[in-house]
Amino acid sequence: MKRYEKLAEQIAEMIRSGLLAPRDRVPSVRQASARFGVSPSTVFQAYYLLESRGLVRARERSGYYVCDNAQQQLPQLTRSNPTVQSTEVSISDLVFSVLDTVGDSGMGLLGAAFPAPELFPLEKLGQSLGRSNRMLARDAVNKNLSPGNDVLRQAIARRYMSAGVPVGADDIIVTNGALEGLTLALQTLTRPGDTVAIESPGFYAALQLIQMLDLRAIEIPMNPNEGMDLEVLEDALDNNDIRACWSMTSFQNPLGSSMSQPRKQALVTLLARYSVPLIEDDVYGELYFGATYPQPAKRFDERGLVVHCGSFSKSLAPGYRIGWIVPGRYFEAVRRAKLTTSLSASVPAQLAIADYLQRGHYDRHLRKLRILLEDQQSEMTAAIADSFPAGTRVSRPRGGYFLWVELPGDIDTLRLYRRALQRGINFAPGPMFSASGEYRNCMRLNYGLAPHCIRPAIEALAQLLETSAADPAPRGE
Amino acid sequence: MKRYEKLAEQIAEMIRSGLLAPRDRVPSVRQASARFGVSPSTVFQAYYLLESRGLVRARERSGYYVCDNAQQQLPQLTRSNPTVQSTEVSISDLVFSVLDTVGDSGMGLLGAAFPAPELFPLEKLGQSLGRSNRMLARDAVNKNLSPGNDVLRQAIARRYMSAGVPVGADDIIVTNGALEGLTLALQTLTRPGDTVAIESPGFYAALQLIQMLDLRAIEIPMNPNEGMDLEVLEDALDNNDIRACWSMTSFQNPLGSSMSQPRKQALVTLLARYSVPLIEDDVYGELYFGATYPQPAKRFDERGLVVHCGSFSKSLAPGYRIGWIVPGRYFEAVRRAKLTTSLSASVPAQLAIADYLQRGHYDRHLRKLRILLEDQQSEMTAAIADSFPAGTRVSRPRGGYFLWVELPGDIDTLRLYRRALQRGINFAPGPMFSASGEYRNCMRLNYGLAPHCIRPAIEALAQLLETSAADPAPRGE
Repeated sequence: MKRYEKLAEQIAEMIRSGLLAPRDRVPSVRQASARFGVSPSTVFQAYYLLESRGLVRARERSGYYVCDNAQQQLPQLTRSNPTVQSTEVSISDLVFSVLDTVGDSGMGLLGAAFPAPELFPLEKLGQSLGRSNRMLARDAVNKNLSPGNDVLRQAIARRYMSAGVPVGADDIIVTNGALEGLTLALQTLTRPGDTVAIESPGFYAALQLIQMLDLRAIEIPMNPNEGMDLEVLEDALDNNDIRACWSMTSFQNPLGSSMSQPRKQALVTLLARYSVPLIEDDVYGELYFGATYPQPAKRFDERGLVVHCGSFSKSLAPGYRIGWIVPGRYFEAVRRAKLTTSLSASVPAQLAIADYLQRGHYDRHLRKLRILLEDQQSEMTAAIADSFPAGTRVSRPRGGYFLWVELPGDIDTLRLYRRALQRGINFAPGPMFSASGEYRNCMRLNYGLAPHCIRPAIEALAQLLETSAADPAPRGE
Repeated sequence: MKRYEKLAEQIAEMIRSGLLAPRDRVPSVRQASARFGVSPSTVFQAYYLLESRGLVRARERSGYYVCDNAQQQLPQLTRSNPTVQSTEVSISDLVFSVLDTVGDSGMGLLGAAFPAPELFPLEKLGQSLGRSNRMLARDAVNKNLSPGNDVLRQAIARRYMSAGVPVGADDIIVTNGALEGLTLALQTLTRPGDTVAIESPGFYAALQLIQMLDLRAIEIPMNPNEGMDLEVLEDALDNNDIRACWSMTSFQNPLGSSMSQPRKQALVTLLARYSVPLIEDDVYGELYFGATYPQPAKRFDERGLVVHCGSFSKSLAPGYRIGWIVPGRYFEAVRRAKLTTSLSASVPAQLAIADYLQRGHYDRHLRKLRILLEDQQSEMTAAIADSFPAGTRVSRPRGGYFLWVELPGDIDTLRLYRRALQRGINFAPGPMFSASGEYRNCMRLNYGLAPHCIRPAIEALAQLLETSAADPAPRGE
C-alpha cells in the first residue's frame, strides 16, 4: 500500500468509527501533514482518493469536509445482536456500584449520568427559587398536588405546542424527575409477570425497574443510526404477549442513535396495530445539535397509546428532580399511581422552574448548552482519535452528551472499570446496558464535563487502556 | 330519674364520648347552670354524684376536673371489628374523590390530610431555602443522591438520639415524603400476592398501595386507646403467612390512638418471634401534647426488623415533600429501590430543611404548634358537643390533628359527604379507612385548621347533619 493510500485508509477509518462525522471539516493539509508525518502532497493525494470514493468533498477556499452520506459507505459501529427472547432480568451489583462511585468527588465524571453542574444556570435558578418561594401562596400544598403546579404545566405545554406536538397543560403530570414518570408508566401498564420490549444496549434503569416490578424483558437490537430494529420488534410482537415497549427515540442512552421522523411514525403505527403502549423516554430531545428539534414519537400518537416522559434534570436543573409525564389515555391511572406512591413533586422546585421558564431564560440557556455540548463532543472524539487504540469505534450522536465507544480486540471494560476506580477514573462499562452481560468491549463516556476537563480525562483513560492491554487477563476471570 | 341524675348522666356521656377528656376542667357550676337550664344546687348534686362514681374530682379553688381513669369506667368509642381474613383490596373512587376536593380552595378543609398552611413557618423556611441554595455546592446533585444530604441526615439522627432512639445518620435514607418511604418499604418487603397486616380503621394510603402492588390485606381491629389488638394480630400471624405489618403506633390516623411503651415493646417482640418486619408509620409522633415524646416502637428494635418512616410534611413543610426512612436490616435493598424508582429527593428542599434544623428553629416551632393544636382540639370538641346530635362520640387523642367521630343511629357519612360537597364542606368519610366499606357512621375531622375557622366549620357540618337526618335515604341507596 502506498503512503497516500495508507493515509486515506486512516482517514476513512476515522469516518467509519465516527471520529469524523458528516459535515466535519477534515484536518487541513498542513495539520494532516504535521500529524501524520507525511508531505503535503501525500495528503493531497489521499484527499483526492477519498473524494473519488465519495467520502469527502472540497469546499471553495475552506478545505475538505466529510460527505453527508459518507458513513453509509463504510462499516459502522456494530449493530447490536441480543438474544430476542423474553427473560427474567437480574441486574448485578455493577449498576449500583457505578452509580455510587459517581458521588465520589475524587472521580473523573466520564461515567456520570448527568452533565457537570458547571453547565447549568444554577445562579439564575437560585434566584427563581428565592423569588418564587418568597411569594409562596398559602394554599401552595394543596394547589400543587398531582397533577402538579398549573403555571409549570402550562409552560411545558407551550414548549410542546411550539414544537408542533399537540399536548396541553391538562395532559401533563409533574413527577420527581423522568425516572419517577417511567416508574409510574411501567407500574400502570403492566402486572407482575408481564413482558416489556426494551432496547439493547439500553438505559440500565429500565432493566432495574423491570427486575423490581417482576416483569420480563425482550431486548430488541439497535441500529446505531436508526434506533430500535422495527422488523425484530414486529417479530417479537407476533410471538410474545408484549404489554409495553420502552424506547428512547432521540439520542438514545447509551448509543446516541435517533430515529428519523418516518421511523418514529412507523414505530407508533406498528405498536398501535398491536394496541401496545409506547413508553417514550425523551429526556435528551432538547439537547439536539443543529437547527431542528427532533419531534418525539408522541407527535404521531393518534390513539393516546404513547406515554411521553420528559425532564429538566438533563438540561436545566438535575438536583431539583422535576420531570413530567404525558400519559395519553392512561392519564387518570398514572395520576392515581402518583398520588398513591408519592403524592406530589417538591413544591419549591416546581415553582422555581415555573418562574425560570416564564422569564424566558430556558431557550437562551439551551442554545448555549447545545453549542457547548457539540464542541465538547468534537473535542472528546478528537482526543479519543489521538490516544485510544487503533480500531476503536465511536458513535457520533447529533445531540445529548454521551459517546458510545467500541474498543478493539478483547478488551474487557469490566476489568478495566475496576482498575480505573483504583486510579480515580470513572466510566460506564458496556455490560451495564444489557440484561445479559453483553457489550463487554464497550463503554459509555459523558462529554458533558466541565470545560477543559475532556482531554485530560480521555488521556488518563487511554493510558489505563495501554497498561491494561499489556496486562493479560488472569485465566478464569 | 331526678334532674341532677339526668345532668350527671349528660356529663358522663360527654366523658364517655371523649368530649371531655381526662384532666379537662368540667364546666363551672355557673356555666353548667346556665347551659343546662338548671339551678346551681342541681349542678352541685350532679357533680357530687359524678365524684362518688370516680369520674370527676374537685381541686381546691379551681373547680371540678375529669379523673385520669374516668374513661375506663365508661363505655368507649366502639372497638373496631373488621373481618380478620386475608383479602384482596379494591379501593373505590372515594379516596381519590376526597383527595381531589381538598385542592378546591372553596372547601372547608375538615377533610384535609395536612394542617392548614397558616400553621407552618413558611417565611422562615423560605429564608432557609434562599440562603442554603445561594450557596449551592457545584457537586450538589451527586452529593445528594440517595441516601440523601449528609447534613440533613445528621440533623434527623440527632433528633432520634436525643429522644433515646439509637438511629445514626448512616441508618437514614431521605425520601419524597413519608409516603414514598412507605411505598419503598412495601416494595422491598413483599412480592405480589403476599399478605400484609394493617390497622382497621387505618390510613387509606396503605390500602391504595396494597392494591397497587397486588398484595393482600388482613385488617386487625383497633382499640381506641391502645392501638392494634395484639391478640388478634397474634392469631393472624399463627394462621397466615404474613410478610409485613403496617402500624401507626402514635396518634394513629384516623383514630388517634397511641400504643403505650409496653405495648409498643410487645408489638416488636411479637413480630420478631415470627420474623415479620414492622413498617412503623410515625409521621405524627412529633405532634404530642403534654411533656413527653412518645418514643416509637423502633426504640425496641433489636433485630433490625422495624422499618421506621418519618416526615416533615405534617409538622413543618408539607409541600417540600421531604421525609425519611430508617430501614434497619433492609437498608441496602431500600436504598437501591429508591435509586431505581426516583433517584433522590429534591435537593433545594433537602438543603432548606437542613438549614432550618441546624438553626434550631424546629423545636421552637413544634412547641408552639403542639400548644395550638391542643387548644384547637378542645375548641373543636366543644363545638361538636354544642352542635352535633346527642349520642355522638369523639376520640380524644393526645396528639396529632385528627378527631374520629362516631355518629349515632344510622347516619350514613357517604351520603352526607356527597351532600356536603354541594355546600362547599369537606370531611373524610369513615369508609375511606376500611378495605371493606365499614365505618359508614364515622368521619375523620382535621382540627389543624387556620385559627378561628373551627367553630364555623363544625357548625356548618352540624347544620348539614340536622337537615340530613330529616331527609331519609331513598330506597335502594
